[in-house]
Amino acid sequence: MVIESTATDTVASLGENESLRRTVSRLNVGEIAGEWTLVGPGDDCAVISAPDGRVLVTTDTMVEGHDFRLDWSSWFDLGWKAVATNVSDIAAMGGKPTSLVVALVVPSSTPISGLEAFADGLREACLALAPGCSVVGGDLASGDLVVVAVTAHGTLEGREPVLRSGAQVGDVVAVAGTLGLAACGLDLLLSGRADLVAAWDEWVGVQRRPNPPVALGVAAADAGATSMLDLSDGLARDAARVAKASGVSFDLSASALLGFEARVEGAAQALSGGDSVATARLTRQWVLGGGEDHGLLATFPASAVLPRGFRPIGVVGTASPGSVSGVTLDGVPIGELGWDSTSH
Amino acid sequence: MVIESTATDTVASLGENESLRRTVSRLNVGEIAGEWTLVGPGDDCAVISAPDGRVLVTTDTMVEGHDFRLDWSSWFDLGWKAVATNVSDIAAMGGKPTSLVVALVVPSSTPISGLEAFADGLREACLALAPGCSVVGGDLASGDLVVVAVTAHGTLEGREPVLRSGAQVGDVVAVAGTLGLAACGLDLLLSGRADLVAAWDEWVGVQRRPNPPVALGVAAADAGATSMLDLSDGLARDAARVAKASGVSFDLSASALLGFEARVEGAAQALSGGDSVATARLTRQWVLGGGEDHGLLATFPASAVLPRGFRPIGVVGTASPGSVSGVTLDGVPIGELGWDSTSH
Repeated sequence: MVIESTATDTVASLGENESLRRTVSRLNVGEIAGEWTLVGPGDDCAVISAPDGRVLVTTDTMVEGHDFRLDWSSWFDLGWKAVATNVSDIAAMGGKPTSLVVALVVPSSTPISGLEAFADGLREACLALAPGCSVVGGDLASGDLVVVAVTAHGTLEGREPVLRSGAQVGDVVAVAGTLGLAACGLDLLLSGRADLVAAWDEWVGVQRRPNPPVALGVAAADAGATSMLDLSDGLARDAARVAKASGVSFDLSASALLGFEARVEGAAQALSGGDSVATARLTRQWVLGGGEDHGLLATFPASAVLPRGFRPIGVVGTASPGSVSGVTLDGVPIGELGWDSTSH
Repeated sequence: MVIESTATDTVASLGENESLRRTVSRLNVGEIAGEWTLVGPGDDCAVISAPDGRVLVTTDTMVEGHDFRLDWSSWFDLGWKAVATNVSDIAAMGGKPTSLVVALVVPSSTPISGLEAFADGLREACLALAPGCSVVGGDLASGDLVVVAVTAHGTLEGREPVLRSGAQVGDVVAVAGTLGLAACGLDLLLSGRADLVAAWDEWVGVQRRPNPPVALGVAAADAGATSMLDLSDGLARDAARVAKASGVSFDLSASALLGFEARVEGAAQALSGGDSVATARLTRQWVLGGGEDHGLLATFPASAVLPRGFRPIGVVGTASPGSVSGVTLDGVPIGELGWDSTSH
């Protein structure tokens, strides 16, 4: 039974236990199946199914002021994003998300309607991004700023996990999902220009509610992916991580990134006042440096058929001792492009 | 390899990634086996073993100022307590803890030595309370207050989970572990009396580093426990939860609690200035209302042999429609004892 709360209820007025109960009551309504849930919320633990005797586990934290602002993201957005960022890590191992637990810290003045919208965001993101996955447990605590800590679980269904360390020289480098849209959306929000935010609301929407290609994680594993990672800190930095873990270099092709850059060119032009050099710089910054789209970066043997949704963007080469990052763009070490990989 | 940090390093000076790396490097040294860990920290996910195809999952959050104070607890204490409070929930289902993931939010001014001591506390608590269990993943974020969110996993090894809802009329009610020591320790700290804190440092130690009887969870399940719960909010409130979930009443015996009250009588006398009425009130408050010892409350069939470490404290009766809490002490509803079950 879902009890509709009144507009004036807060965590303080209802207490943490009742607030948590109200919030949890929104999680398992409608089409949510929770097909991996053997014992759901309400006891000391939940019990989830792990049919092949193994469980994928990942955790990700979002802190108010650092990872989100409540004037830019709604409570629904926050719940959605908490699911998206975590199930994307499950996908990046070649797994299917099965369950989440959510720890939420909020000021006691937080309206219950906010918590309910947060729960709605959790539920709808599970339905949209990882059908069958559900929230099996949580914790609600009071604190002076909002913190969301989610732990996600997944099943490999008998497959071997796809690690960061498996890329082989000669492999194809490919990405699934979008690149740079969330970073573009963030810069639009940072600009304070309501007209630009409205004009490119779809990119702002990717920042608020990322749409990671979760099902493509399993598809990549089935297609023989040798390494994979969730793109959360930007292509340049995340590619460097895989290259380092695998002891190889990633040689990316600038022409393969043009399609990604074209999508954000209009917003870049608007933000840079039409200056073409600044526009080109901004689009590259977003596509190479922008995180939070939560696409997948994977390597495949040259003979593999890429799953629909993956696009080739380069090849795996031998690690060159001189390169710091292990990533080049058209043969130029990415650190020498005069571009700041740490600014996002 | 463990790198010893200098006294001046902070999260801000080293950055979140390097700070996390340093912290994680302390987790898997020495005797830690991590026998359930198939893929450890460092990739998008960890992979843990779930031999019987099921996983117990629980999450618990601690917030600075609400759940702990850094002038009362060291970073080591905090790590220890984060493990203790979570593995205790695994035990309360009849399970064995296998792995933890830890999300930590700290101010960027936090010294790395603090994070290292926190990691040491996590590691030592795993070794002491749940051998074989280890930290398989984590996340470090910056924020203006300290938040620790832990998710623990466990295995049932083929057993059925022991739920809160299984208590039967005629069962014996029993507890394992201590009652009221952590609450006594908290009141000693709240008194601001260094002499009293020193005199009863063992009880203050239970507040700082709880020592839940984790192995007795499996023992209780094997002995046929019909219901079980981790005592975290005090005997009166937690017993009411099980009674409600099971549709029964818990009839506790005051004489069975005397042994628990005797252990804290000296501290109660000192805090109440020798007043015998106030002393009796305080000891009862601690034993019935004090949480955070993280003992186990369980019910067993009358014919069961209680595992060593469990003490009988009452019997399960039929639910009486008049009783709010479903818990009586020597036949008197606990709500009529003139005692505030919500003050701790």
